[in-house]
Amino acid sequence: MKIPYLTPEMRGELDLRIAKIREAMAEGDCDAVLIASTTNLFYISGTVFRGYVLILSDSDPVWFMVPPSVAPDGFPHCHTIHKPEMIPAWLHEAGYAVPRSIGLEFDDLLYSELMRLKSLFPESEIKNASGVLRKARMTKTEYEIRKIREDGMHQARAYSKVPKCYKEGMTDLELQIEVERVLRLEGCLGYLRAAGSRMELNLGSVISGDNADMPSPYDFSMGGAGVDPSLPVGADGKTIKPGCSVMLDMNGGFNGYQSDMTRTWYLESVSELARKAHECSRRILRDLEKRALPGVPVSELYIKAVEIAQADGLGDYFMGHRNKVKFIGHGIGIELNEQPVVMERNRQPLLKNMTIALEPKFVIPHVGAVGVENTYCVTDNGLDNLTEFPEELQEL
Amino acid sequence: MKIPYLTPEMRGELDLRIAKIREAMAEGDCDAVLIASTTNLFYISGTVFRGYVLILSDSDPVWFMVPPSVAPDGFPHCHTIHKPEMIPAWLHEAGYAVPRSIGLEFDDLLYSELMRLKSLFPESEIKNASGVLRKARMTKTEYEIRKIREDGMHQARAYSKVPKCYKEGMTDLELQIEVERVLRLEGCLGYLRAAGSRMELNLGSVISGDNADMPSPYDFSMGGAGVDPSLPVGADGKTIKPGCSVMLDMNGGFNGYQSDMTRTWYLESVSELARKAHECSRRILRDLEKRALPGVPVSELYIKAVEIAQADGLGDYFMGHRNKVKFIGHGIGIELNEQPVVMERNRQPLLKNMTIALEPKFVIPHVGAVGVENTYCVTDNGLDNLTEFPEELQEL
Repeated sequence: MKIPYLTPEMRGELDLRIAKIREAMAEGDCDAVLIASTTNLFYISGTVFRGYVLILSDSDPVWFMVPPSVAPDGFPHCHTIHKPEMIPAWLHEAGYAVPRSIGLEFDDLLYSELMRLKSLFPESEIKNASGVLRKARMTKTEYEIRKIREDGMHQARAYSKVPKCYKEGMTDLELQIEVERVLRLEGCLGYLRAAGSRMELNLGSVISGDNADMPSPYDFSMGGAGVDPSLPVGADGKTIKPGCSVMLDMNGGFNGYQSDMTRTWYLESVSELARKAHECSRRILRDLEKRALPGVPVSELYIKAVEIAQADGLGDYFMGHRNKVKFIGHGIGIELNEQPVVMERNRQPLLKNMTIALEPKFVIPHVGAVGVENTYCVTDNGLDNLTEFPEELQEL
Repeated sequence: MKIPYLTPEMRGELDLRIAKIREAMAEGDCDAVLIASTTNLFYISGTVFRGYVLILSDSDPVWFMVPPSVAPDGFPHCHTIHKPEMIPAWLHEAGYAVPRSIGLEFDDLLYSELMRLKSLFPESEIKNASGVLRKARMTKTEYEIRKIREDGMHQARAYSKVPKCYKEGMTDLELQIEVERVLRLEGCLGYLRAAGSRMELNLGSVISGDNADMPSPYDFSMGGAGVDPSLPVGADGKTIKPGCSVMLDMNGGFNGYQSDMTRTWYLESVSELARKAHECSRRILRDLEKRALPGVPVSELYIKAVEIAQADGLGDYFMGHRNKVKFIGHGIGIELNEQPVVMERNRQPLLKNMTIALEPKFVIPHVGAVGVENTYCVTDNGLDNLTEFPEELQEL
C-alpha cells in the first residue's frame, strides 16, 4: 500500500509537523526519534503503514517501509526493509552517524517491541520519545484543526437524529445501537484511538439513570456498568425510564482525528435539580470559553469549574456523585486522550492551537448524568467551539 | 466495582485456570507471575478490574485491587492498594519471600508500564510472563469452550439476517453497517480484543470485488483499502457489483470470548472459478476437521491446505492473489489472535481443547474473496465446529 494523499498540501503539512517534533526534540535533548507506533506514524505520514520513520535533528527524515507497505513514487529518503534490524546497517552504509541519543516511544509501544528497537542502538542513549511526540501533537496545525471541526460537523449531524432513533420502551443499549448506525452512516470510522491501556470501548457511551454512578475500571469521565463483565463500562441494557436523563458521549472519529461531544436528553420529565446542574455545566463552559487564553495554567480551568459548581450548591454531584473523577477535560486529536489533562495539578499553560474537550458533568441520583461536552480550539480570543450543536437538555 | 459473577462454578473455573498458569510457570521456570494486562486480568477473574494479581507457585494468588475496583465479600487474599509501588511492602509485611524469578507481561504491557512493575522487584530475575499466560490460555476449559460455542450461535443468528440487510445499490460499507447493527442487537459487545499492535478495526470486515486484493498494513488474513487513510483496512465504500463476492468476517464477541466465522455471499452471479475456489475452501476444512487430532503438528494443517489448493490448480489465489498471507488460521479465545498460529513453520503439536479458527480463503481477480472460516475445538475425534452455519456460497 502506498502512502495516499501525499498532495503538495499534505507535504507542506508534514513539514510543519516535522518542525514541531524537532522543536520538542531539542527541548528534550534528543538527537533522533524513531517512530514506530500507529498513532505517531499516522501523525507523521497522514496514513497508517507498516514501517518506521527516523526523525533526525539535522537532516531529512528517513522512512523505512516494511512490505506490503511501499513508498509513493518520488518520495525521497524512503527505503524498503523487511525487519527493523536492517535499520542500523542501512544508516551506516548511507553515511549517517550513530545518533548520540535516540528517542523511542516508551508509552506507546509494547515492552517487547521497544526492547527490540532499543537493541538496535547499543551505543546511543535511549530516551522516551512519547513525551516529545505528545508535546509536538499537543498544539495542532490549521489542517488538523480543520479536520477536528469537520468531525464536529459530522458528529452534530448524527446527534441531530438522536430523537428519531428513540422508540418507546427502548433500553439505553438499544438507543446506543441506533445512534451507532447513524454515526457510521455519517462516516464515523468506528475505531477509537486512545493512549494507554485503560480505554476499551465500542463506539461510545450512552448512560441513563443510576448507571451513571456505577464506577468503571476505565479512565472515562463517566462509568457505567456495561452489560457483560468482560467490558464493564457504559450502557447497562436497562429500559430508559421516565424522569431519567440520557447522556450521549459517542465517537466522533471520521477522518483520523476525533471530536468529543456530549449532549443530554431526558425521557418525559426531569427534576429541577438535574435542570439546574445541566445549566450550571453550560455556565461553566461559557466561563471557561473566555477564561481559557494562551498562558493561563490548565489547572485554573479545573479550579474555576469546581468553584462554579460549588457556588451553585452542586459540588456533591460534580464529575460523579458516589464515584468522582478528578479532571474536567483533556486534549484531543488523533487520540481521544491527548495532552493536556485538565486537572488541578496540571500547571501547564494553555497554548494557542491546543484542542481540548471540556466536559463539566454532574451525576444526579435517580436521574443520571447531565451536562455538556464540547471540543474547543484555544485561540487568542479564548476558546473556539469545534462542536456546535444545541446544548439544551432536550426531550427524547 | 466488585468482581461480579463469582459463583461457586466460577470459583472452580478460576482454580482450573490458576492450575494451568502454574503448570506453564513450572515449564518456564518462573516462581511468580504478576498479572496486569486487561486480557489476563479478565482470564484470571472473569471480569475487568483495576489492579493486579500475583500468582505464586506455592501459595494462593494474591489480589491487589486499585479503587474504584473493590474485592467481592469474602474473597480471600485480596487487598486494596492505591499504586503498584505498595505491592512489595505488602508482601514483606505479610511474610512472603521475595520471588527468585517473577514473570511480567512483556508482550501485553506498554514499555513504561512494565518498567514501573520491574522496578518493584530489584532482587528478582524478571521473565516474560506473556508466553506463560499464552500457553495457559492456548487450551481452553469446558467453560471457555461453552462460551465460544455460545458466541458462535449468536454470530450464526446474526449472519442468518445478512440477506435481509442488503438493499439494491448498497456499498460494501453500507451493508457492513446494517450487519453491525444486527450483531449489536444480537448482543455483540463491539470491542475486539487482539494481541499486539497491528489489529485496528471496527466490528469486522466486509470485502467485495478487487478490494479483497488490496494490501493492508494490518495482520488480518484479508486486507482491503478502507475508506480513510487513517484506517486502511476493510470495506472501501464502493457499490457492490453484480458478479462480485461479498465476504463477511465480522466480530463474534458476545461474552468476553470470541468466535471467528466467515461466510461468503455474491450479487446476482459469480464465476465458475470463484465457485470452484469456494468449494475447495470447504473441502480443505473437511479434510482438516479429520486430520487435526491432538499430537499432529500445526504446520501439517497449513501444508495440507496449500496442497489441496494447489492440486485444484488454485494455488495462485490461495490466501490472497497479488498479496498473500502465510497462515490459514489462528488460536482464538479472549483475544482474536491467540496461539497457535497455523502456519508452515509452527511445529507446535495440536492439543486437546485448543480452539482454533481456520480460514482457507481465495482471492479471485474481479470477483473478490471466497471461502469459509470456522472456529473449532480440537477433540480426540478431530475438530468440533463451534460456528455451525450453512457454508454454501449464497446469493445476497
